[in-house]
Amino acid sequence: MANDIGLIGLAVMGQNLVLNMNDHGYSVSVFNRTRERTEEFIAGDAAGRDIIPSYELEDFVASLAKPRKIMLMVKEGAPVDGFIDSLIPLLEPGDLIIDGGNSFFKDTIRRNKNLTERGLLYIGTGVSGGEVGARFGPAIMPGGQAEAYALVEPIFTAISAKAGSSGDVPCCTYIGADGAGHYVKMVHNGIEYGDMELISEAYHLMRHGLDMPIDEIQKVFAQWNEGTLKSYLIEITADILTQIDQRTGKHLVEVILDSAGNKGTGKWTSQSALDLGVPAPTIVEAVFARYISAFKSERVNASQQLTGPTARFTSDKTAMIEAIRDALYASKIGSYAQGFALMTHAAKEYGWDLNFGAIARLWRGGCIIRAQFLDRITEAFEAQPGLPNLMLAPYFKDAILKAQDNWRKVVVAGVESGIPTPAFSSALAYFDSYRAETLPANIIQAQRDYFGAHTYKRLDIEGSYHVDWPEPGRPEIRTG
Amino acid sequence: MANDIGLIGLAVMGQNLVLNMNDHGYSVSVFNRTRERTEEFIAGDAAGRDIIPSYELEDFVASLAKPRKIMLMVKEGAPVDGFIDSLIPLLEPGDLIIDGGNSFFKDTIRRNKNLTERGLLYIGTGVSGGEVGARFGPAIMPGGQAEAYALVEPIFTAISAKAGSSGDVPCCTYIGADGAGHYVKMVHNGIEYGDMELISEAYHLMRHGLDMPIDEIQKVFAQWNEGTLKSYLIEITADILTQIDQRTGKHLVEVILDSAGNKGTGKWTSQSALDLGVPAPTIVEAVFARYISAFKSERVNASQQLTGPTARFTSDKTAMIEAIRDALYASKIGSYAQGFALMTHAAKEYGWDLNFGAIARLWRGGCIIRAQFLDRITEAFEAQPGLPNLMLAPYFKDAILKAQDNWRKVVVAGVESGIPTPAFSSALAYFDSYRAETLPANIIQAQRDYFGAHTYKRLDIEGSYHVDWPEPGRPEIRTG
Repeated sequence: MANDIGLIGLAVMGQNLVLNMNDHGYSVSVFNRTRERTEEFIAGDAAGRDIIPSYELEDFVASLAKPRKIMLMVKEGAPVDGFIDSLIPLLEPGDLIIDGGNSFFKDTIRRNKNLTERGLLYIGTGVSGGEVGARFGPAIMPGGQAEAYALVEPIFTAISAKAGSSGDVPCCTYIGADGAGHYVKMVHNGIEYGDMELISEAYHLMRHGLDMPIDEIQKVFAQWNEGTLKSYLIEITADILTQIDQRTGKHLVEVILDSAGNKGTGKWTSQSALDLGVPAPTIVEAVFARYISAFKSERVNASQQLTGPTARFTSDKTAMIEAIRDALYASKIGSYAQGFALMTHAAKEYGWDLNFGAIARLWRGGCIIRAQFLDRITEAFEAQPGLPNLMLAPYFKDAILKAQDNWRKVVVAGVESGIPTPAFSSALAYFDSYRAETLPANIIQAQRDYFGAHTYKRLDIEGSYHVDWPEPGRPEIRTG
Repeated sequence: MANDIGLIGLAVMGQNLVLNMNDHGYSVSVFNRTRERTEEFIAGDAAGRDIIPSYELEDFVASLAKPRKIMLMVKEGAPVDGFIDSLIPLLEPGDLIIDGGNSFFKDTIRRNKNLTERGLLYIGTGVSGGEVGARFGPAIMPGGQAEAYALVEPIFTAISAKAGSSGDVPCCTYIGADGAGHYVKMVHNGIEYGDMELISEAYHLMRHGLDMPIDEIQKVFAQWNEGTLKSYLIEITADILTQIDQRTGKHLVEVILDSAGNKGTGKWTSQSALDLGVPAPTIVEAVFARYISAFKSERVNASQQLTGPTARFTSDKTAMIEAIRDALYASKIGSYAQGFALMTHAAKEYGWDLNFGAIARLWRGGCIIRAQFLDRITEAFEAQPGLPNLMLAPYFKDAILKAQDNWRKVVVAGVESGIPTPAFSSALAYFDSYRAETLPANIIQAQRDYFGAHTYKRLDIEGSYHVDWPEPGRPEIRTG
């Protein structure tokens, strides 16, 4: 017995990856913390396949061809550390552990270092696409030693989604050292939060600003999916809006509670942007929009007390729908610009050699943010690998400049009618701040020097300066 | 020799606190990592005072009355841990260490726990007001054991700023256990970032939207400081705008580089809001506005390529100035609402019994955000201690509802003229989201259930639900 790869953790994602690997001819050893789930899987979907269960970790390890390749699909945090600790004494130098969960990238850096010191290889990989992706082709973002990736490249590229004009380009690329794969997956998820919030705001504006019935909104999303917005999330939104609830006969979205959950990766992306000094306001606003939605009972109470405008949009409906489309597209460009700028700075901070064209290319299939739009991002970074901001690439610059009048029109309509568009607004403020030669940070620097002697720099000459500020009311000037 | 208190760390803040304590009759032992700074201090400002230097930590500790009270004014992080480690073997049960720097509250919780286990007392305290505050009266926010606070209460209330109608209420109140003081100081700083950004945006709108000369803007801020906006930050802004640069003869703010720095406490506040699931978009936008300002050369480059509207504000100037005032006031209420909601949730998470009325009261003097506005916050929380959001308190509700038309007008003017107002806009979106009975999070929950089987709740009945979503294009409905 010498199976090609082993997988630990037989929740749905794990099971589906095993079946996917086996579809491509690989024999897979499987192990789960509880015996029952393994037995169910073996008796069920895995029946009759070259999928071999073990009920002791020692047997599991012994069943693998050397160098052993063991993939963990367990909950991020302590469970990952727990299995790593249990596996270490059973492995030999050159063996490889792969963490396929949504682990925090700093944990991945730490684990990689720890295992490297023990002569073991380690990959932390993003796997995107949900259950269906895992089963039939996810986007895979592996980070770790290049020689570790070489060991699993044939399996990973086989099971990954395929994209490109001929549909044969694997959505799997080596991302970089240690935590790079999990970092890029984290930013993918942050961008996903932004996309979902932008779509929701577009829906909200049509539903409440234009008083459109859901069937009509559904047609708009279906139509948008034929153009530059074509993407998985727009497609499933159009599909969601067709669903009728059996219990009430209403559209399903009308009975779903407007209180959004989250699994933390959008939060991590936001916190990393804050740590690295990179503005990512649209991603953060998307996270906060979920948070504020969860205060449902407070909102219902506040809605009785904090009244606002009741007027709805006055401009032509067709023109406004087109404007919302433009606002969504321009905001999306701003949000992706934030995500790629964040990765640019993370690469410098953590010593990763990230290929942004390749990252956008691998996101074209399998993952949640898959979209034709990503081809344009690949082209932008291939034309200019050091591109400081996506909004400066000719294609996106033209798109955003063409859309900007409508973008402003939509944000104004939301503000005037009291319909919140935090992501649309923050993306526009990001655009207007980024393209501002002058910002009022001179006032902030003067204030900081005034109360905290933090000093300031000047526009005309080098150096740090401090004013011995007078107490208010006693103007005495001494710059030096 | 048995001095009342000892202080370690003789940078400006530390020296000024020592002089302040001594002004109030306390004898102070001092120690600094480098001998030279101690010698300079003793020969300089401390000359002829009851301020006693030590050049060995053992002597320093031996010079203190028991139970010993030792205050650290050193850089947050490793230096604090270093001195704590050095002091532990020299101290006896019941002695007290106080950290007066801007330490991260989780470090303070950890240190408190560690010292408690050794029978020592520990206070982590916020000290706000910059150099001048430290010298003549800071706002002090101590967290730790109640019995630890009792040991230093006479000293702390003596040296603190005084406020209130009779000017005799100490700006120092026991905040709560372990990290509570540093947490509240952190949120104070986050709110300070918001205030500074809001003032900067108001300046920017007047300077570039209304083309007002700086002297005219100066008069507006001076006038605002006579009304509901009266506060230290408005006052110093008016003062800053009077300053003329000696080198160029221009207004000083015209020569200060528009690239803002930061010391990290606004970032921590933002990250804590993200951790606790509490929306604080205006504080985060204020942090990001500083970050984006620091990309000065990218902005200058982008300003050549990403063109936008050039039209300026068309409405009556006097009316627009009044509208900007209203927008600043309403946004400030929204920002403080976020900060207090954050503290409310932090108190639950970390087990602190925070008195928000008392916190607002102590912020009235000494600290950077001091303002008459804070009396209204105290009244709001005293009238309703469980107030879920400041915007619901009658005074602030009325203020925000009265200001909202002008608030919307200003955000619209900024959007239409391409002048970024991320803090004004995000505060308005926060207000509009918080008062929204319905938000489009139903779309987000449907999407999450579609691609990740995350389930959703319903408006009409209890429980979690999942749709076995069809692949796009094959509508089959099965709600379970």
